Amino acid sequence: MVVRFYFDYISHNAYLAWTQVLRVCDRHGATVAPVPVLFAGLLNAHGQRGPAEIPAKSLWMLRDCLRKAKHLGIPLNPPASHPFNPLLALRATCVEMPDQSRQALISALFEAVWVNGKQVSDPAVVAEIGDAAGIDGALLLQQACTDSVKLGLRRQTDEAIAAGVFGVPSMLVNDRLFWGYDDLVHLDAYLAGKDDSASSDIERWLNVTPSASRDSA
Amino acid sequence: MVVRFYFDYISHNAYLAWTQVLRVCDRHGATVAPVPVLFAGLLNAHGQRGPAEIPAKSLWMLRDCLRKAKHLGIPLNPPASHPFNPLLALRATCVEMPDQSRQALISALFEAVWVNGKQVSDPAVVAEIGDAAGIDGALLLQQACTDSVKLGLRRQTDEAIAAGVFGVPSMLVNDRLFWGYDDLVHLDAYLAGKDDSASSDIERWLNVTPSASRDSA
Repeated sequence: MVVRFYFDYISHNAYLAWTQVLRVCDRHGATVAPVPVLFAGLLNAHGQRGPAEIPAKSLWMLRDCLRKAKHLGIPLNPPASHPFNPLLALRATCVEMPDQSRQALISALFEAVWVNGKQVSDPAVVAEIGDAAGIDGALLLQQACTDSVKLGLRRQTDEAIAAGVFGVPSMLVNDRLFWGYDDLVHLDAYLAGKDDSASSDIERWLNVTPSASRDSA
Repeated sequence: MVVRFYFDYISHNAYLAWTQVLRVCDRHGATVAPVPVLFAGLLNAHGQRGPAEIPAKSLWMLRDCLRKAKHLGIPLNPPASHPFNPLLALRATCVEMPDQSRQALISALFEAVWVNGKQVSDPAVVAEIGDAAGIDGALLLQQACTDSVKLGLRRQTDEAIAAGVFGVPSMLVNDRLFWGYDDLVHLDAYLAGKDDSASSDIERWLNVTPSASRDSA
């Protein structure tokens, strides 16, 4: 089974999930296919605000993520800036390379942002991270800036939106969507054949119609 | 200790939380102060969309709530319509009455929506629910339509926004905000004196500034 893991470096929840998802999938002989997407593109498509754009929610989410990191025993430090422009890091991740190298690069980029406070919108930083992950940094930068890679990231984001992905991290396996770090436990159950989110009721609910709507601002 | 429980009947997550929050607080000798608020008012204030306004998220959330209800062993059925206008039900809940009566009315209104598929925007339905909960239904309707009750609901919603409440259900105790059914476990820990969301790190994070912003649509 293949689990598509949709992510953007801008999300600390995606960082937390990335540290765990390979292990969860390994346990069940499932493969993780990491899919970089532009979170801002998802937000635009769904007319939604990101948590960082709602100060009260942002504070809640910070406490929530710090608690999870502490529970997991993994480091989580303030980023150099936030929100930042993640395009270069996402594009570098889309460059053709062996799966093992891509996994190493993703881990290194997440850690650069969420552990080491590095600015991954800076080409020099991305090149250095590539070199440290065993990928030629200069070549990585060059390939990250090609039209085909830029279009590839855009296409992946569009495909994610079409598949119903509305946030990061998301995990898609068959047609079942799992959202957020907290859903890893339900992905785990699903991969174990115990689908705790299956419901014979879904059809009845899909027929519910609105009787009021809020005036859009 | 007093736990302010902010809710709107429009939220199935709030219904699920209401079935549990009294027990959680009782365990620690804490009191629940239910605070009806207009969820649409919170969304407007934060420029946010509700899950019901994002079809992909709405489907995810439905599965999530059905799973929780099943786990808790409590009934959850499709509402008569959704979104619906919750103002009358919220205002009726704001009418002056003993705490015990208000708790009974809240339970009855939540069940009308999320178990029995009743339309609580219909005055006849609200009156009937009031009568069944041991409150004079006709009098309840009359008082729910007074200016002081209408203004009271608006003031409560504004106060919630000012306190940093961005969604329902939310639980506020001292200055600590818990959001969503899923946070009940953390509220439980907090009330037990084991504050699992305390972090000495918070200050460092509050100094992080943006280096990019998404173009608003």
